[in-house]
Amino acid sequence: MKLNKSDFSEWYNTITKEAQLCDLRYGIKGFVVFMPWAVMTMNRMYGMYEEAVESRGHLPALFPALIPESYFTRESDHVKGFVPEVFWVTEAGNNKLEERYAMRPTSETAMYSMYSLWIHGTRDLPLKIYQRCQVWRHETKATKPFIRSREFHWIETHDCFATREQAMSQVREDMEMAEEVIHQKFCVPFLFFQRPQWDKFAGAENTFAADTLMPDGRALQLPSTHMLGQHFSKAFNIKYTDDTGKDEYVWQTCYGPCISRIYAAVIATHGDDRGLVLPVRLAPLQVVIVPIIKEETRAKVLERCEEVRKAIACCFFAKIDASDRTPGFKFNEWEMKGVPLRIEIGMRDVEADAVIVVRRDTGEKFKVPTKEVDAKLDELAQQIDKNLKEKADKWFSDKVSDADSMDALGAALEKGHGFVRVPFCTDGMEAEPCADKVKEAHQANIRGSLFGNDEKPNGKKCISCGNDATIYLYAARQY
Amino acid sequence: MKLNKSDFSEWYNTITKEAQLCDLRYGIKGFVVFMPWAVMTMNRMYGMYEEAVESRGHLPALFPALIPESYFTRESDHVKGFVPEVFWVTEAGNNKLEERYAMRPTSETAMYSMYSLWIHGTRDLPLKIYQRCQVWRHETKATKPFIRSREFHWIETHDCFATREQAMSQVREDMEMAEEVIHQKFCVPFLFFQRPQWDKFAGAENTFAADTLMPDGRALQLPSTHMLGQHFSKAFNIKYTDDTGKDEYVWQTCYGPCISRIYAAVIATHGDDRGLVLPVRLAPLQVVIVPIIKEETRAKVLERCEEVRKAIACCFFAKIDASDRTPGFKFNEWEMKGVPLRIEIGMRDVEADAVIVVRRDTGEKFKVPTKEVDAKLDELAQQIDKNLKEKADKWFSDKVSDADSMDALGAALEKGHGFVRVPFCTDGMEAEPCADKVKEAHQANIRGSLFGNDEKPNGKKCISCGNDATIYLYAARQY
Repeated sequence: MKLNKSDFSEWYNTITKEAQLCDLRYGIKGFVVFMPWAVMTMNRMYGMYEEAVESRGHLPALFPALIPESYFTRESDHVKGFVPEVFWVTEAGNNKLEERYAMRPTSETAMYSMYSLWIHGTRDLPLKIYQRCQVWRHETKATKPFIRSREFHWIETHDCFATREQAMSQVREDMEMAEEVIHQKFCVPFLFFQRPQWDKFAGAENTFAADTLMPDGRALQLPSTHMLGQHFSKAFNIKYTDDTGKDEYVWQTCYGPCISRIYAAVIATHGDDRGLVLPVRLAPLQVVIVPIIKEETRAKVLERCEEVRKAIACCFFAKIDASDRTPGFKFNEWEMKGVPLRIEIGMRDVEADAVIVVRRDTGEKFKVPTKEVDAKLDELAQQIDKNLKEKADKWFSDKVSDADSMDALGAALEKGHGFVRVPFCTDGMEAEPCADKVKEAHQANIRGSLFGNDEKPNGKKCISCGNDATIYLYAARQY
Repeated sequence: MKLNKSDFSEWYNTITKEAQLCDLRYGIKGFVVFMPWAVMTMNRMYGMYEEAVESRGHLPALFPALIPESYFTRESDHVKGFVPEVFWVTEAGNNKLEERYAMRPTSETAMYSMYSLWIHGTRDLPLKIYQRCQVWRHETKATKPFIRSREFHWIETHDCFATREQAMSQVREDMEMAEEVIHQKFCVPFLFFQRPQWDKFAGAENTFAADTLMPDGRALQLPSTHMLGQHFSKAFNIKYTDDTGKDEYVWQTCYGPCISRIYAAVIATHGDDRGLVLPVRLAPLQVVIVPIIKEETRAKVLERCEEVRKAIACCFFAKIDASDRTPGFKFNEWEMKGVPLRIEIGMRDVEADAVIVVRRDTGEKFKVPTKEVDAKLDELAQQIDKNLKEKADKWFSDKVSDADSMDALGAALEKGHGFVRVPFCTDGMEAEPCADKVKEAHQANIRGSLFGNDEKPNGKKCISCGNDATIYLYAARQY
């Protein structure tokens, strides 16, 4: 199996198939079967994200997968944004239903209809709830496994506050979680953009989204957090009585880390021409032990393998591959699957009371005395995760650049820069035609302004309309 | 809030509302919102069951929630059994779909269509896959939260083997898991019945189901495991080439622990007239610390509460309820929610360097020196789980009895016996009319023969038709 990451699209298709991450042969277009090797990693990712969400005061709940059409249509921007993508249930058994039910494309309308019954006074606030679930969207864009499919696996948090300020600090907390989990733990870098007004979540006041870059320089949206303001609380009548006895609408935020898509970013960020590369904490199998067997020494070698496995079992998911395939075949297979550490043990190693340890990320080999294997693996595990993060950060930071004109933007994109900062007239609705021109000229989208950076393009002109620029926005080609 | 468990139905409705386990006001009949207190316990239950399933060699996967009608109709008994309950997706966005999609009521047909692509030779067997997911069934029976709703949360395992014997030993392993998790860990007793032929899973050769009893003596089905034989492998063309080069159909089993329903059994088995009672390992909050505060001693008491909380935080989920409600209100509320252990600390306790510890299950109070709190809690936690199990087992074993005639069966049921063993002509299809007569006479169902017990009713007559009895079956009123 030849892999070549510089042809990313082909590389990605091959790796998801050869590492047995998914099966695309299911009978509904855009619906993918997620296979065990992928699900085992996604389950670890879920665990870490749920821990981050719960440690910040969110409680888990489970809302129905079906939403009555009457709930769904209550917030007008929201319904306009989502209706083209909704799967509708219209029959049950042999009967037509009286009302259509939407398969949730997102759960605002399911949850907020209940929130209005749950919230009465300041004692009920803040309300911070999350659910781990699947959502369904009849995407019209081309699907690609994990990156974009019609069914995806995510966490959604939905929070209510007494004040706008509290809601905005939740938005910042949501961003912190992305930094803590996706960047620090999964080693995937990103930038948080405030989306322009024409590209925000349907029903939100403002959308803040983490964008990472694929190896081909195109942007992929990771979690977004939304300042909903009072749009939904007014539509769903979610009010609390404040300390002076006055009824006020709550301020809301929501946040949607999509685990299946973040998994795609993990694959794309770390993989190489030999296959998947996984941070140690995400690997379904962290250490594979490959015995180098000759018939006459089989028993002794396998015994040593078992001793080593036991010695490291406290701290690593480890297994011995004692199947009848050749060592070379096994090396290739476990490299394709991204197992971070390989131990090779042959008779010569048994006699020398040592083992060979191989790092997946760098290919480095170490001869390690048997007694020291666990300590060496601990050390290497930390180095691997650190190395993956540093490498990804370095690559990513080289992909961000500046351009002050439409031509310069084109040149930067052609050079492979992912995010190009450009002076723009504004990020308000009125600038959408300016963004359309960027798209026509360079197939690039305006992703928004960098959150937390207020630098002004003093004296510069909008690259699209030529009027005075008031803001720096970032352009990128996107998935 | 008055609770009276001897009126079980009312008790159950009240407790699920007052302990805030669910909200029934969602806009689709039979669809329930599961609230945080319930979901936190269900998540622990999921964790323990998934561990049992994975430690026995099952790998996690995720299959689509939608099943094309063409897959769904491939096994004829299966489709007949499930079609009356299926929610159908017929539209997407503004378009009618060319083919209807079933929202999975169970995943055999989704998974086996892929299995036929994955299995080739003996090396691919056994194949043991599970998924954690929701399923949807348009139940026509009355719904009751967690017990029976139109959306439920479960684990389903789907296994393929080379031989019938291997499949049957999987059935036994599935039963072992139920014993390990539901009985040993959740402290809920049950019996495993082989269902009569007229009451097996649609498409199965045989169904084995764990039945527990509700406090009103009615049976509730917990997980069932199914010997599918080769029905599905023939319908879905799942074949392997054996060592002699011959193609053979695989032998299959499936197993469906329904976590939301098992949760109902936990509520019903352990709860009492003060509310929910939970095994310590399932409690969202294991220890609540209630300060007994007077204004002048507030700071000192809260300081001691915090010291105690820190001392036990390593081993228990514990929190201080420092809200401004009265201690009596707090006691009632946390008892209603089933928190297994309460610590009370007032100024007198601070001075005596001791705390009061109260067991939820028995109401017993202990005065414990502050330094010994963690050791005492460890001891009590073990005693609580042991006590809950013993109490439940004792109650359950008293509910099983014998009857040799239709009248005796009626009398036993009226006395409150849950499972009544009766001699029956046979458990084959031809005895369905006999079972119907039992139902008419006593609103009781034939649950099947006790698995692993081959005792024969020598010389006895079927209680229904009066012919010679060949088998002992168990009758019960059911949910």
